[in-house]
Amino acid sequence: MSASVVLHVFLLTFLFFSLEYYSMRVDKYLSEKKKLIEKKLDTLLPPESEYPEIIHRAMRYSVFAGGKRIRPILAIAGFEACGGKTLNRILPCACTIELIHTFSFIHDDLPCIDNDDYRRGKLTSHKVFGEAIAVLTGDALLNLSFEIIANTNLKVRTKVDILKEITKAIGTDGVLGGEVVDIISEGKKLDPEKLEYIHTKKTGALISASLKIGGLCAEASPKKLKALKDAGSKLGYAFQIVDDILDVEGDDSRVGKKTGKDAESGKITYPGLYGIEGSKSKVKELCSGAKGIFDRFGVKGEILKDITDFIGERTW
Amino acid sequence: MSASVVLHVFLLTFLFFSLEYYSMRVDKYLSEKKKLIEKKLDTLLPPESEYPEIIHRAMRYSVFAGGKRIRPILAIAGFEACGGKTLNRILPCACTIELIHTFSFIHDDLPCIDNDDYRRGKLTSHKVFGEAIAVLTGDALLNLSFEIIANTNLKVRTKVDILKEITKAIGTDGVLGGEVVDIISEGKKLDPEKLEYIHTKKTGALISASLKIGGLCAEASPKKLKALKDAGSKLGYAFQIVDDILDVEGDDSRVGKKTGKDAESGKITYPGLYGIEGSKSKVKELCSGAKGIFDRFGVKGEILKDITDFIGERTW
Repeated sequence: MSASVVLHVFLLTFLFFSLEYYSMRVDKYLSEKKKLIEKKLDTLLPPESEYPEIIHRAMRYSVFAGGKRIRPILAIAGFEACGGKTLNRILPCACTIELIHTFSFIHDDLPCIDNDDYRRGKLTSHKVFGEAIAVLTGDALLNLSFEIIANTNLKVRTKVDILKEITKAIGTDGVLGGEVVDIISEGKKLDPEKLEYIHTKKTGALISASLKIGGLCAEASPKKLKALKDAGSKLGYAFQIVDDILDVEGDDSRVGKKTGKDAESGKITYPGLYGIEGSKSKVKELCSGAKGIFDRFGVKGEILKDITDFIGERTW
Repeated sequence: MSASVVLHVFLLTFLFFSLEYYSMRVDKYLSEKKKLIEKKLDTLLPPESEYPEIIHRAMRYSVFAGGKRIRPILAIAGFEACGGKTLNRILPCACTIELIHTFSFIHDDLPCIDNDDYRRGKLTSHKVFGEAIAVLTGDALLNLSFEIIANTNLKVRTKVDILKEITKAIGTDGVLGGEVVDIISEGKKLDPEKLEYIHTKKTGALISASLKIGGLCAEASPKKLKALKDAGSKLGYAFQIVDDILDVEGDDSRVGKKTGKDAESGKITYPGLYGIEGSKSKVKELCSGAKGIFDRFGVKGEILKDITDFIGERTW
C-alpha cells in the first residue's frame, strides 16, 4: 500500500470514530438530561390522588406520554453554555417549558383545532378524558408553569425576566399567534411570508425562549442572551421544517402521529412550497447558522452544536 | 302631633336619606372605577389592527362585552383599604383579574363545557369567532395577564407575590379545580360539601384573590392581607349563591344570559340544595361576616362594606 492509501484509510477511520464519539456524546447527554427532567416533572406536578383527581391524571397523562424533552434539554444546555453549574437552578424552569409545550399541543389536538387522535403514539387528551377536561388540563398546565416560576429559588429579578421572556414567547406574537395564522391559512394559497411567520412563531418562539431561559438562569450577559435567542430562532425554524418533512417522508409509528395530514388538510408546509430537497437544504442552512453562533460559546457550546445536528437529522 | 310621632318621622327620613346616600356613594364609586378600568384595559390589550387581527379582535370582543368589573374594583377597593393611593400602582394588576375572569368564561362557555350562546347579553366568543379561535383567545388572555404583571412598575418582589397569589387562585385548587368538579358533578346527587367546593373555588378563589392583590399592591401587612383574603372568601361564596338565585329568579335580559339553565342541566346549585329562602339567608350571613372583617379597616374599609351590600343585593 502506498503512503497515500494508508493516510486515507487512517483519516476515514478517524472521521468514523469521531462521528461515533459525537453521536454517543449527544445520545448520552440527551438521555441523562431527559431522566433528570422527568424526575423533576414528577415532583412538580400534583399527584394523581389529589382532588379533583381527573385533572391531575389528565395533566400527568399528557406530560408523561413520551417525548424527547428537547425544549427543556435546550434550556439546560443553554444554562451550561453560559457557565451555569447547579442544575437545580435551571431544572424547574426547564420543566415549565415542557409543561407549556404540553398545554399547547393538548389544545392544538382538540377536535375544533387540529382534530388529532394520536400524539407521540398515544391517544390525545380529549380522546381519553373528553374535550371539557382536555381544555381545562391545557389551562391548568399553562397556569402551573407560572406558579412554578413564581416559587423557584431564583432571584426575584430573574423570575420576572423569565416571566417576561416566556409570556412573550407564548403570546399572540409567539406560539398562539402562529397557531392562529396556521388555522386561518388552511386551504388558502401558499405564501412564503406566512409560512415563515407560522414556523418561527408556532414552534420557533418556544425553542428560542428555552435557550434564552437557560441563559437567564445562569445570569448570562446580554450579549450571550442575544446569541442564544438568535441561534434558537434558527434552530426552532429548522425543527419545524423537519417536522414538515417527516409529515411527508416519516412513518406513523416512528413519528408517533398520523403522517401525511398536512397535505390532506391543505396546510401550508415548507415542502409544499419548496419541495423536499429545498426543505432539506434550508434545514442545513439554518443548523449551520445556529452552530456558527454556538461557536462563540467555545467548548461549553459544543453540546449545543451536537444537539443542533441531532435536531437537523432527526427521524421522529 | 305628639313628640313621639315627630321623632319617628324624623328617624325614618334620616334612615331613608342615609340609605340613599350610601347607595349613591357605592354607585358613584363603582361607575368611576369601572371607567378607569376600561380605559386601562384598552391600553393593555393589543389593538385590533395588530397581526394576526382575528385573535386581537376576539380578545377585545369578550373583554369589552359588558360586565360590572366587580373583581378589579374589589382589587382597587382592597388597595385603598390598605392605604394605597396612587391608582396607577394597582390598575394594571386589577385589569389582569378581569382578563383572567374573561379567559375563564370564554372556555367555560365552549360547547364542550357549558355550551352557552350568550354571555352578558351578547353572543359568546365561539359563536362569533368559532371554537378554535375561542380556545386560543382564552389562552391568550390568561398568558397576557402574566405578561402584564411581569411588566408593571411594581417592585419585583411584589410582582412575584402577586404571581403566586393569582396562579394559586386559578389552578386546580382554585378556579380550574372548581370548574372540573362542576363538570364531573353534573346530573349527580346533590352533595353539600361538593357544592361548597365548587362555589368557593370556581367563583370565590378569584374574588378573594382580587382583594388580596389590592393589599399586595399597597404593601399591606400580613395581618391585613389575611383579613382581605378571609373576607374575600365569604364575599366570593355569597357572589356565587346570588348567581344561583338569579338563575332561578332573574330575568334573561337583566342577567344577560339564559336563566333556568342550572336546573335544566342538572347542575348542583345552592337553591337546589337549600331552597331560595335558605340561599338568601346564607348570602346575608356571608355578607355580614365579610363586613365584620372589613370593619377592621376603619373608615378606609367603608366602601368595601358598601360593595358587599351591593353584591348581596344584586339583580344582574
